[in-house]
Amino acid sequence: MTGQVYLIGAGPGDPELLTLRALRLLQSADVVVHDRLVSDEIMALVPAHIRRIAVGKAAGFHPVPQDRINEILVDLGRAGLTVARLKGGDPTIFGRGGEEYDALIAAGIACDYVPGITAAQGAAASLRLPLTHRGMATGLRYVTGHRARDAELDLDWASLADPDTTLAVYMGAANMVQISAELIAHGMPADLPVMAVSQATTPRERRLQSDLSGIAEALRDNPMPAPVLFLIGRVAALAEEEVLRLPTAEPAPLHKLFSHG
Amino acid sequence: MTGQVYLIGAGPGDPELLTLRALRLLQSADVVVHDRLVSDEIMALVPAHIRRIAVGKAAGFHPVPQDRINEILVDLGRAGLTVARLKGGDPTIFGRGGEEYDALIAAGIACDYVPGITAAQGAAASLRLPLTHRGMATGLRYVTGHRARDAELDLDWASLADPDTTLAVYMGAANMVQISAELIAHGMPADLPVMAVSQATTPRERRLQSDLSGIAEALRDNPMPAPVLFLIGRVAALAEEEVLRLPTAEPAPLHKLFSHG
Ligand SMILES: C[S@@+](CC[C@H](N)C(=O)[O-])C[C@H]1O[C@@H](n2cnc3c(N)ncnc32)[C@H](O)[C@@H]1O
Ligand SMILES: C[S@@+](CC[C@H](N)C(=O)[O-])C[C@H]1O[C@@H](n2cnc3c(N)ncnc32)[C@H](O)[C@@H]1O
Repeated sequence: MTGQVYLIGAGPGDPELLTLRALRLLQSADVVVHDRLVSDEIMALVPAHIRRIAVGKAAGFHPVPQDRINEILVDLGRAGLTVARLKGGDPTIFGRGGEEYDALIAAGIACDYVPGITAAQGAAASLRLPLTHRGMATGLRYVTGHRARDAELDLDWASLADPDTTLAVYMGAANMVQISAELIAHGMPADLPVMAVSQATTPRERRLQSDLSGIAEALRDNPMPAPVLFLIGRVAALAEEEVLRLPTAEPAPLHKLFSHG
Repeated sequence: MTGQVYLIGAGPGDPELLTLRALRLLQSADVVVHDRLVSDEIMALVPAHIRRIAVGKAAGFHPVPQDRINEILVDLGRAGLTVARLKGGDPTIFGRGGEEYDALIAAGIACDYVPGITAAQGAAASLRLPLTHRGMATGLRYVTGHRARDAELDLDWASLADPDTTLAVYMGAANMVQISAELIAHGMPADLPVMAVSQATTPRERRLQSDLSGIAEALRDNPMPAPVLFLIGRVAALAEEEVLRLPTAEPAPLHKLFSHG
């Protein structure tokens, strides 16, 4: 009897943004395999008797390579276990979830995706700005600003330079000098609003408001802890003064119903 | 004392895809204001004593105009009530949530967004395909195929015609002839995979697999009930044979913990 692996979106950090399915599965699994992106607040919802395996990169430690993560999941599945594989955000977006899925199916192990709130959705709600909005943004685009080691950042700048589409730039902090310069060079207004959000939806959330011409310098002067997401577009101006001034509100206490005690 | 309005993402239909926060708020509100996109399965989680106001369009009925919805929300807020405004998917994406938010804030009523799983995320999980995937899709784009009355469909086709980006086309069923033709005319491969998904994540989910050159005709021959979402891109080929053959599995019963009885 082989087991079952659930590739579960844990959302951006706030445990109340877990889906009901995610909570049910992580409280009934035999083992939880988690990334560094999964917040401590969420891991606190895992019952104490459930085994945990951390595969995320943490400062000073080498990350577990993706092939090794795939192997761990396959081995747990072969052992007949029910595995809750917790990933930040949604498991089908920028998280290499598809690679884990493929490895499991190739090994004959049942596997399912469980959607999660993305970092962009969490940041938008937290900043109180809509990702699409009449007269401001007719669509939304998720892009990655991550560069494979030694490779150039290979993005289709002409296609990205559309001020009517909100851009959610993931993994872009290290390359924001180039990203902002290329977008301006390809026709985006230099004063197009940008919001950078660090650790969105957690009590540690921090925000930085700027525009395309200023974001790289603002970030250099105010470094933000990872993970950082950039929302670029007219809607980024809608984050309210009040929201920007205040520290993140403590998340509402989890309803008693959801505790496992 | 004015009230508080929560613009809550109800997700694509499966009640287990509600977030913990959404469930908590819809079970503790004074009144629930809901769209037609919010499934019966989700409305069944609203305790019987809570007042419900339906503002969605249903066959044979005129939809409540957006201005009137805004007024209803403002009036409820002014009456000091806690309002759970349930919207399909995520409230900040294609749902006019930003307009409701603006109207409420202009009237001095406290308002918050609560993120929800989008139709695209729900459909991807249900079809078991990743929205981004190594070697297949480096990004994801949400676009609307909806045309304002009498207006032309005004999309930047050249920018959309990027086979490395998964397109999630919302509200596109009525214009799929034009959308697919324009994408091909602007350089997308005619055999680029397309999945159409109707009522994703509900027990009524239906799927149609085709490609850009065939989708409009396939849809004409196999009309699907609204709402319908299109996933266009290489990843759309990954929906598994097994998934396509089987009817949607009954959603797992909601854990007892979440019932309000
Ligand atoms: C490997 S991607 C994972 C994306 C995730 N699957 C999602 O759907 O949001 C990691 C990147 O997500 C973004 N990210 C994830 N969680 C975040 C958070 N709480 N606040 C800000 N950015 C976050 C950052 O850009 C980070 O570099
Ligand atoms: C006004 S938009 C709302 C989008 C929503 N806010 C979201 O985040 O997914 C309505 C469109 O969403 C899509 N949609 C919503 N729920 C869906 C579902 N369960 N299955 C397929 N498409 C859905 C359809 O394209 C529909 O025309």
